[in-house]
Amino acid sequence: MYNNSNLIAVGFNPKKTYIFSDLNNSDTLYPIAVKIAKHSTFSTVKGIFGFNHETNPGMIFFPAMQAAPCFLPSELYGKETVCLIPAAIDQDPYWRLTRDVANKIGHYKPVQIHCKFLPGLGKGGKMSSSDSGTAIYTTDSPDRVKKKVWNSFTGGGGSLKEHREKGGKPQICSVYQYFLYLFEESDERLAELIKSCKIGETICGDCKTVLTERVTRFLLEHQKKREKAKDAVEEFFITR
Amino acid sequence: MYNNSNLIAVGFNPKKTYIFSDLNNSDTLYPIAVKIAKHSTFSTVKGIFGFNHETNPGMIFFPAMQAAPCFLPSELYGKETVCLIPAAIDQDPYWRLTRDVANKIGHYKPVQIHCKFLPGLGKGGKMSSSDSGTAIYTTDSPDRVKKKVWNSFTGGGGSLKEHREKGGKPQICSVYQYFLYLFEESDERLAELIKSCKIGETICGDCKTVLTERVTRFLLEHQKKREKAKDAVEEFFITR
Repeated sequence: MYNNSNLIAVGFNPKKTYIFSDLNNSDTLYPIAVKIAKHSTFSTVKGIFGFNHETNPGMIFFPAMQAAPCFLPSELYGKETVCLIPAAIDQDPYWRLTRDVANKIGHYKPVQIHCKFLPGLGKGGKMSSSDSGTAIYTTDSPDRVKKKVWNSFTGGGGSLKEHREKGGKPQICSVYQYFLYLFEESDERLAELIKSCKIGETICGDCKTVLTERVTRFLLEHQKKREKAKDAVEEFFITR
Repeated sequence: MYNNSNLIAVGFNPKKTYIFSDLNNSDTLYPIAVKIAKHSTFSTVKGIFGFNHETNPGMIFFPAMQAAPCFLPSELYGKETVCLIPAAIDQDPYWRLTRDVANKIGHYKPVQIHCKFLPGLGKGGKMSSSDSGTAIYTTDSPDRVKKKVWNSFTGGGGSLKEHREKGGKPQICSVYQYFLYLFEESDERLAELIKSCKIGETICGDCKTVLTERVTRFLLEHQKKREKAKDAVEEFFITR
């Protein structure tokens, strides 16, 4: 699995970063999860997560395991620490449960920042790693990146002629979303891009060429860093 | 807690014995428990253990944690090993659940020996550590042992005169149970005791004197061994 080395490759500081896993670090997490579970009920997790009588007991207990890291510094070092959770909205139910329990076990409530979902390269919807056609993986080669970007859903006209006449719709264009979220830092240039697309000046091929080049440059660099990061993974483990 | 050193004091071989705890060794147990839980449902554990919607998720998951040690050698060393569980009948539901799951995760079904409950010193029922009057603790002093044994429920007559005339009832006598289970190894002497009690020859004071002496001798020796065992506890830990 590349997960850990990807994190390191994007620049997390090993002095401030602790990587842990539910399965490999249960010595640390399970005792905290048990405390949390004591202040919860099947009714509660059933209501929040839509469990039913066929749900396996591991899933019923899982919200408590998921909540445990919120109290890690407080539990491990005995100094009450507020936890800030950057996660997308789909994880929100876990932190609501956690906030309900926090005070009952003597800790601060964790707080959260809702991150936006990265859009996919298809029409609408979030990027899903299970749809390989519309998701760019951090392991993709330049050829695959090119193919995916050139197959992406854009806001361009049905033909070049139509595009030149009526202009494009950047608001529904997945390539534009990619610039907006990740690959164009300048708000000014984004504004210009919208303008020139809407009047049919910039065509989809132009955008796809630039995006392909930027994604490829980022990934080649990232993949190099990740190779180096592999040897450093253990420095990040909570058990170090 | 004396639990671990008590086990060592009664003579378990450190080369063949591994002591572990759900909370201290979850790194080992939790990943196995998760596998087990996947082949179970809330309906199943609800039915077996009488859980309801107010039950905490830790309890709902606990049967999977309790089942995990049955597969420890198989999981840790990759060599399929049959597990024999010596436990009293109240633990039986856990092993039934475990036997249902075993084959599904590729392991042998565990097998069990039902141990008898040790009777208390009161009238009927099993010994309960929460009833300090009718339970002898391994930490009790000779004075407390004497007091407990002399206050115990016996099968003796209402008065010495009555006992001499009508005899006693060893079958309901807690002191006799103590001889039977723990402190009289000779079946011959047990048979003699029954006989002489029933004809009123042996009186309760005789039995209580002998039992007090034997329990005290055992406990003083045990407490000495336990003190020594304390330093050896870590040799028994599964993490050694």
